[in-house]
Parts: sequence; structure tokens; C-alpha cells
Amino acid sequence: MSSNARNDVSEQQESAAKTGHRLSRRHLLLGGAAAGIGAAGAIGVDVVVKGGIGASAPQTVPLFSGTAAVPFFGVHQAGVDTEPQSRVTFVALNLLPEVDRAALRRMMRILTDDAARLTQGEAALADSEPELAVVPARLTVTFGFGPGLVAVAGGEAPGWLRPLPAFTIDRLQPEWNDGDLLLQIASDDPLTVAHATRMLLKDLRSFATVRWVQSGFRRAAGSEKPGTTMRNLFGQVDGTANPDVGTTDFDGLVWSQADNPGWLVGGTGFVLRRISMNLDKWDGLDRSGRESAIGRTLANGAPLTGTQEQDVPDFTATTPLGFPVIPEFSHLRRARSENTAQRIHRRGYNYDDAPTGAAVSNSGLLFACFQADVDAQFVPIQTRLDTLDLLNEWTTPIGSAVFAIPPGCTKNGYIGDTLF
Amino acid sequence: MSSNARNDVSEQQESAAKTGHRLSRRHLLLGGAAAGIGAAGAIGVDVVVKGGIGASAPQTVPLFSGTAAVPFFGVHQAGVDTEPQSRVTFVALNLLPEVDRAALRRMMRILTDDAARLTQGEAALADSEPELAVVPARLTVTFGFGPGLVAVAGGEAPGWLRPLPAFTIDRLQPEWNDGDLLLQIASDDPLTVAHATRMLLKDLRSFATVRWVQSGFRRAAGSEKPGTTMRNLFGQVDGTANPDVGTTDFDGLVWSQADNPGWLVGGTGFVLRRISMNLDKWDGLDRSGRESAIGRTLANGAPLTGTQEQDVPDFTATTPLGFPVIPEFSHLRRARSENTAQRIHRRGYNYDDAPTGAAVSNSGLLFACFQADVDAQFVPIQTRLDTLDLLNEWTTPIGSAVFAIPPGCTKNGYIGDTLF
Repeated sequence: MSSNARNDVSEQQESAAKTGHRLSRRHLLLGGAAAGIGAAGAIGVDVVVKGGIGASAPQTVPLFSGTAAVPFFGVHQAGVDTEPQSRVTFVALNLLPEVDRAALRRMMRILTDDAARLTQGEAALADSEPELAVVPARLTVTFGFGPGLVAVAGGEAPGWLRPLPAFTIDRLQPEWNDGDLLLQIASDDPLTVAHATRMLLKDLRSFATVRWVQSGFRRAAGSEKPGTTMRNLFGQVDGTANPDVGTTDFDGLVWSQADNPGWLVGGTGFVLRRISMNLDKWDGLDRSGRESAIGRTLANGAPLTGTQEQDVPDFTATTPLGFPVIPEFSHLRRARSENTAQRIHRRGYNYDDAPTGAAVSNSGLLFACFQADVDAQFVPIQTRLDTLDLLNEWTTPIGSAVFAIPPGCTKNGYIGDTLF
Repeated sequence: MSSNARNDVSEQQESAAKTGHRLSRRHLLLGGAAAGIGAAGAIGVDVVVKGGIGASAPQTVPLFSGTAAVPFFGVHQAGVDTEPQSRVTFVALNLLPEVDRAALRRMMRILTDDAARLTQGEAALADSEPELAVVPARLTVTFGFGPGLVAVAGGEAPGWLRPLPAFTIDRLQPEWNDGDLLLQIASDDPLTVAHATRMLLKDLRSFATVRWVQSGFRRAAGSEKPGTTMRNLFGQVDGTANPDVGTTDFDGLVWSQADNPGWLVGGTGFVLRRISMNLDKWDGLDRSGRESAIGRTLANGAPLTGTQEQDVPDFTATTPLGFPVIPEFSHLRRARSENTAQRIHRRGYNYDDAPTGAAVSNSGLLFACFQADVDAQFVPIQTRLDTLDLLNEWTTPIGSAVFAIPPGCTKNGYIGDTLF
């Protein structure tokens, strides 16, 4: 994820080597998951793995620990190809009218400095509660730029950096839309997310005001085998088709190449859709109805033509009566394209806010995804789902935002320095 | 915690015995913490502990795992003396007008049955998303009865089961007050809390409506050494003076004895105060000002007259200038009584909701505590804090609720069966 591997990662490699294990590139890509090993050693635990995690040879196990840290500096920002943490807070801000290009530069220097510290378990520069900073728990802070910020910076915006086209299924509530600056703050520890969010919002006091805050969750770190695809609140396995981190496939789909403005090379595009899920209505649907709507089994997420989650769906298979096994209207069929370039890297979270009135839930999905070109990758998928996707019966997009995620930076630079 | 130890606990003991470790009563009291060991085995990890957790002999380490389960049935309800989980949702409900004693009995039978299943990682009886039930992560569900429910049941209410006396510092917002029925749903996994909350609220559809929902968090399981006292969002170590679980001291302070109505013996009293914390204003205070306000160091929570968190404060110690080292107005001095019966078992959580307007935080403490007699234990402490506690400058109680927590039940009974 980063070419500037930090000291503690090297120490973990050394320590792993001593105990006869080796950290593969795959483990390093898992970031904090692998980093937990060193920390486990620190509290006096030897971990010996026999099999598991889909391999026959002995290997390290990602033991969760609060001291695990994901490198901040690197070619790309962290928080994109990082194995998703358990908790996230997305914050969008509006720049104050007086903020100009020079102020933006100061703002990003301050934010970069504090984010770099906090992600490594160090207090922010003016940290008023330094004791809350000591548990990074794989904290990542990822910055995104909206069209307004790029304009103030006088930079060239990629063509896709604008509100998404209006979809017929949308019932957008303005309070969840758009923004000039995005913070994605994610960690396996909710107190860490709260503290980092507060420190960064304090940095932003003289530059911007909060536009919206959206918090979400997945299973806690340690609840499941690492790499398990998340389930949403419908009980669906959600995100199976993601490209594999560390492959050229992933790199091509996610990281901006030269066809985007130069300042964005090594960055990516980000879409956040707040999707309300009507759990009460979903209750009225039986299991086979649910599986038809999705095109996958609920039990393990296998396509209806397969037995394992990762099986390739067979869209030509038919039932004895001649109907497609994976229905035309199913989410799986509508989301999938013949064009393999029309894919995205999903990194969503569930939300579950307090219900009001007679409803027993106020829940949904923070559908978050990364792709090099939003127009070429996300929009065609969403257009197909807009036209015909049975899941639309139970889901409603109520918020929408698009941001450009600038590349990472070196220790001497700051996030966004290619733009300013 | 329960005399009905479940099968998987026995299996863990057996498994622990095989590997040469023994689960002490203390470990059993830690519930899911210890239970993680069996689960670790299941995914192919051997854990060997060398020292740690404050003991010299080899012992088990509380390795977090989603499969860890806290027994549901027992003399007391779980979730009171259970080592606090990372996440909580408190829900208060209003009974529907048509609900009578017979309906209450049905309601509590249904809730008990589903809570018993869910806490053991089994689907609720009419679970629409059974796949979300498989990770209990130490889930506990604790039920509380407000005065309205006890009245409908025709039972005798303890004298303290009523709104707290009005304190001068209170700025209560009615939407956070009182209620007929309380659910405390806590787990180390946020998805588990969301699913259990939804299943139980579905059970309640024909009996009650939601009055308020308050969710909170502590550090994630695995972030810190088990038993570490939590920190609140002021950065304070919060809850040091708690009685030790499993001692006669704890039992006497927390579990109702014969001086409460008979149906409550083995139960306890519960107070939830929603305390808004003005982090912006707190920022204006330097470290020494903060430590004076609290009476403890921020670094490790030691009283200002000591060096370790658990040191007994010396209220007679004075500075060279003759002032008390622990100031008269400090929270520590005001909260502490000479009367050792005036103590409570705190089990609070942080909250951090989306800020509005120019504020950069909307945060505070879900101050939750258990005590056998609210009037004799909680009220005198709060009265002293109301009169003079410098912390009142930065904190405001905005919600308040009192519930009677009935005792636990056997497999053939249901929560509240001593009342009905």
C-alpha cells in the first residue's frame, strides 16, 4: 500500500522471521491485520496457526490489536485498499467563503500532519486528549476533494467530478449530498474514530463548516475470519465481486492513470450513496423471494447457479420450466456487465440510526466505492440498476456525493500537494 | 454469573484443561473474554500465554472472538456484572394502552425466548436474517421495568422506582427521559447489537412503541488489556471506584436483598443519565486545570495524591501553600462518601453523535449505573455533585431514567416471572 513502510512493520517482519513465519505481500496489503502480530507479541501471546485462512502451510493469523497501525505515507492514500476496518465516519465540509488557494494549502498541511500522527497512535499536534490517541487500531484518514475545492485551488477537475446524474429511484435529501472536502475516518475502534474525527474537525474550524456526518459499521475486528465479505442489514453477503487488492486488475480499476488530470494520478474517484433499506417491508418477503431478488443464496452468498460465494454466475442456466435460474430482475444480473472495465471497488458500511414513529428501524447502507473513473465505471452500473433491479422495491438512495481522492504523499509532502 | 453454565463453557473448560490451563472463577466471570479461547481453537489457533494480565503463572488470555457467548439464564440477568462490551444500545419503550398483565406475561416470555437464543448465537424464533445471528460476540440483553410496567403488572414498586429528584444542574430534554420497559443490548460487535435490537423490537410491535434509543461505545474488544478502566471523551479515566465483580462487596452494593419487594431479590436498580459534554469549552482548560477539576491525573487516572489509578486518595494532603492537593470542588472528592454504602457499579458508555451548526462535536456520556437502592446509593452522590462539582462547568445532564432490573430466570422461566 505504501512504499514508505514504517519502522514497526519492519520490526514485525523481523519478529515474524524469528518465529519462522514470513509476512507475504498479501499480509502487508492487509496492513493492520498483519501488524497485529507484533502487538500480540508485546502483550505476551504466541500465536501458532495450523492451517486456516484457506492455506495449507503454517502462516500468520491476523490477531486484532489496538496498536496495529496502517502506514500513512505512500503512493496512494490509505483507506482505499486497506482491509476495511470495523467503524467509519464520513464527514463532508463546506469551505468558508474566505478560503483561497493559499489557505487550502495551509489547511491540507495541517490535516496531513495530524492525520499522519493519529494513524500511528501519536497525539495530534494540539491534541487536547493525547491519552485517547494511543490506540490506532488500524486508523486510516482518507481525504477527498469536491468540485468546489478543486475550483478554489484553480485545478483541472476530472469530468466525472460532479453530482451523479439523477436516477429515477433517487429520493435525495439535500442534507446528505455533496460537499467540498471529504474525510473518511476508519478504525477498528470506535473511540479512536471519535477522537480522530474531533481532532481533525478542530483543525478545520477556521477553514470549513460541517455539511454532513455519516457513521457506519461492519462486524468487529476479530468477529469473523479476515477477508469475510460483509453482510448488510438485509442479511445479504455484500461486496463479493470486488477486485482483489494487490492485483493489476485492482490497480487498473481503482487508481487514476494519465487519462485523469495529472494531479490525480495515483488517486481515485469516490462515490458515497446513502441507501435507506426498508427492513420492515423486507420482512414481508420469504427466503426464496429474497434470493431471487438478489440472485444469490442468503446462506453463503453463492450465485443461484453455484455453491460457493466466488463461483462465477451462469446467466444462461434455466429452471426445468425454462425460466432463468438467476432472474432478469435480480440485483446480481443487473449489477454485472459483460464489460469487465465497468467494475468498482466497494467499501461500504451499514448504518442503523434511532427509529422514529411506528418504524422499528432506521437503517441502511453507506454504499461507498472507489473507481478511477466514476462516469465510466459506477454510472453504467447504477443506470442498469435504476432501470430494472427488484431490490429497488426495498431500497431508496437518499444521499449522494462524489469526491476525487488525491494520491498519497511523502513525509515531506502533504495530501493534495500535486494540486496546489 | 449463572449457575446454568452452558455446554460451550464446559467444552472450553475441558479444552483449557487439555492444554494445561484452567479457567478460574474470575475468568468465568469475565464471560466471553475467557470464552474466546474455545473459539480460537475452532479457527485453528493455539494460544500460549506467557505471563501477562497481572499474574506470574501461565494463564488463559481473553482472546476476542465473535463466537464468545455469555450465559443467559441464571440467578441474575447478564449485562450487569458482565465485563462491559464495546457497544451498547439502550431502548426505552412505552407500553400500549391495551397491554394488561396477561399481555405483559406473553411479552416477557417472547422477549426472554428470543434474547436467550440471540445471546447464544442462535437465530430468534422468527428471525428474518438468521445469518446475522451467528456472531454473539458476548451479546447480553438486560431487561428493566419502569414504574408504569410494574403498575400494570399489579406489583409492588420499590420506593426508588420513580424519576430522580430534580437537580439544579439538570437541563432534561423530555425525549431522553423515563420509559415503561428498558432493553440494554450490548455486544463487542456492532452488527450483532443492530440485529438483536431489531429482532427484539419486532417482538414488541404489538405491545409497545419506542420512546428513545441511545447508543454508545467503549474501546473495541482487543484494543486494550481486559479490565482497563474506560476513558470518556474528556480523556478522563472513568469508573475507577467500581466494586470488584464477584466480591461480597459487589454483591451487597448491587443485588437487591430482602429490603426490596420480593420479586426484585436478585435484581438491581438501574439509572441512565445522558450527560452532554461540552468538548469545545473543555478545550479552553489546560491539563492542570483539568486534573484539578477531576482530582485525578489524566495520564493514568491516579488520584492527585497518588501514583497509581487504584491508590486511595488522601483528602487531607495539602500543597506547600496549604491548599488541599485534591481540591474541595473536584469531582473525585464530591463523588466520594465516607459512607461506603453510598457506592454504585458504573457501566457507562460514550456517545458521539453528528454535530450541528458551528459545534465540532455532539458528544457525551451515557452514565449508566447499577445499585440495589437508587435512593440510598445514587441520589446522595448526585446530590453532592449537584451542590459543588467543578465538572458541572463542562457537563450537563440532558436525560434521566430509572428502571428496576428484575432477577435472572431459569430455562423454564422468563425474565420478570417473579413479578407476574
